[in-house]
Amino acid sequence: MNGKLGEFEIIKTYFSPLSRSEKGAFNLTDDAAVIEIPDGFSMVVTTDTLVEGVHFLSEDLPENIAAKLLRVSLSDLAAMGSIPAYYNLSIATKSGTSSDWFKAFAEGLLADQMQFGITLIGGDTVATSGPLTLSLTAMGFVKKGNAISRGGAKSGDDIWVSGLIGDAALGLRAATGKLSFVSEKNKKYLISRYTKPVPQTLLGPKLSNHVNSAIDVSDGLIGDLDHICEVSKLGADIQIDDIPLSRVAKSVVTEKPDYIDLILSGGDDFELLFTADESFRVIAKSLTKMLDVNLTKIGAMVDRRSIEIFDKNGDKYFIQNNGYTHF
Amino acid sequence: MNGKLGEFEIIKTYFSPLSRSEKGAFNLTDDAAVIEIPDGFSMVVTTDTLVEGVHFLSEDLPENIAAKLLRVSLSDLAAMGSIPAYYNLSIATKSGTSSDWFKAFAEGLLADQMQFGITLIGGDTVATSGPLTLSLTAMGFVKKGNAISRGGAKSGDDIWVSGLIGDAALGLRAATGKLSFVSEKNKKYLISRYTKPVPQTLLGPKLSNHVNSAIDVSDGLIGDLDHICEVSKLGADIQIDDIPLSRVAKSVVTEKPDYIDLILSGGDDFELLFTADESFRVIAKSLTKMLDVNLTKIGAMVDRRSIEIFDKNGDKYFIQNNGYTHF
Repeated sequence: MNGKLGEFEIIKTYFSPLSRSEKGAFNLTDDAAVIEIPDGFSMVVTTDTLVEGVHFLSEDLPENIAAKLLRVSLSDLAAMGSIPAYYNLSIATKSGTSSDWFKAFAEGLLADQMQFGITLIGGDTVATSGPLTLSLTAMGFVKKGNAISRGGAKSGDDIWVSGLIGDAALGLRAATGKLSFVSEKNKKYLISRYTKPVPQTLLGPKLSNHVNSAIDVSDGLIGDLDHICEVSKLGADIQIDDIPLSRVAKSVVTEKPDYIDLILSGGDDFELLFTADESFRVIAKSLTKMLDVNLTKIGAMVDRRSIEIFDKNGDKYFIQNNGYTHF
Repeated sequence: MNGKLGEFEIIKTYFSPLSRSEKGAFNLTDDAAVIEIPDGFSMVVTTDTLVEGVHFLSEDLPENIAAKLLRVSLSDLAAMGSIPAYYNLSIATKSGTSSDWFKAFAEGLLADQMQFGITLIGGDTVATSGPLTLSLTAMGFVKKGNAISRGGAKSGDDIWVSGLIGDAALGLRAATGKLSFVSEKNKKYLISRYTKPVPQTLLGPKLSNHVNSAIDVSDGLIGDLDHICEVSKLGADIQIDDIPLSRVAKSVVTEKPDYIDLILSGGDDFELLFTADESFRVIAKSLTKMLDVNLTKIGAMVDRRSIEIFDKNGDKYFIQNNGYTHF
């Protein structure tokens, strides 16, 4: 932490309390933090950056911005099969940002620290003339050799997804004034799923050693599956009717069938998409019971470099707005 | 790394090659990196953020911006006594930033990776409408229990500083059109010292176990000494004439004595300021020989909560522009 106008006070008042459970963070008063890695574990490190006006809206509540920021990285840690441990936080903000904003933002971080078991250990706070820019580097632990990569999928693997897919993408549309045909109650549900996605921090570490590849669904179901396919040099067959949708998402698709494309290609669900051989099917049942989480088999990896989507009649389905190849 | 417009290509072309020496970075194609910490070592983690127009100028060369960004964090790692290992990089930049810019920036990173032995293992690249915002989280290793903190100074400790102090602050003035009374050759020297400060990455780890506290001089000599004093709950007596100045800095002060205040309170030298008991004096001699680095004793820690500065006559010196208390 280097010195800039007002930085010391902001850190001392709002951020230093978030580091108290880790002695090696020195109350955020030193040049760096010093942390221990448990014997037999590797460290997993991931960085995500959110920019006001791009990844969140200026009017979003500070506590929701804090939650989104942390959960994006927590989801990456989960996808590697690791347990959350620490994070460093960089905040570039307009000078004169109110102490109320920092207070609410820090409270949001604290709530998620308690929920997900992660601790702030350092960072930097600087002034910018531009939009609020938040960058978070999260660190987690995984048993040596047990990290799950994107590149381990095998031909014939079942393709699994956790939770429900598509609510977040629909929620973003609802939040920005679209989906006028959806009831207020259902819009509220979808928006909450977009605003506070729940990363699979308990599921991820349990998958390690049982699955061959994993990724979190942040770019969109098909887009993220394509990342697995690319690194694993394989393709996939997906059964569109097996994709797990919420009651609300189902009602949206019933009313306007085109929205299935958004569900297939939209992002931000922060569920885990993973591949495993047949022996995982029985493990899936016990994990579902243990963690109260949906695990749904939606297809299979194939020895061909493309993704094909099939409807219930066995016909090929083509995404009209083929967003996933055009990030 | 999450997907945004053009991000995948930028990462693949310019940043992925920087990660090649670390298998656990997965060529930057996965959700996170997986790294091993050597047995018996702790990990040191530090984050620094630089904003265009605040910490560097829009017209600065991309390779110089890259060097500054890495070296700020390398200096923090050195101040903890740790050996550089890895870094994650977040880049928020205007969409449409030229590939030439990314190329030169990545070349600057690569040059410093080779010089200082640190490897890129992850990050994020996002679009912003605002100034270029770079955030770097660096990771290093230190033997368990050997990290040097700011809070370990003892009353009676000698106060030491590495290298030469003040060139960087004078260099910033020279770069922004001040110091008109200084020759072009000397201005060029000072500017180079500001643009490419050399972090003490070899010295830092050698100090661990021999010194009681350390910090890097980034906020300014007296300001950073004050950080040590605050956390260690002590004060300091400084001999102004013992502060090591370059030939050029000496000539500036000879011509305009007021500039000594800038030398005392300016920042960005990235030298190490540390305290140690008398037994370090003989070690200092051998370190100076081994590493070809100046180590200069400039004062002593005292059991009083203030910093006092003395001139060669033993009179107290007062900084006129008392910048260091007003970050």
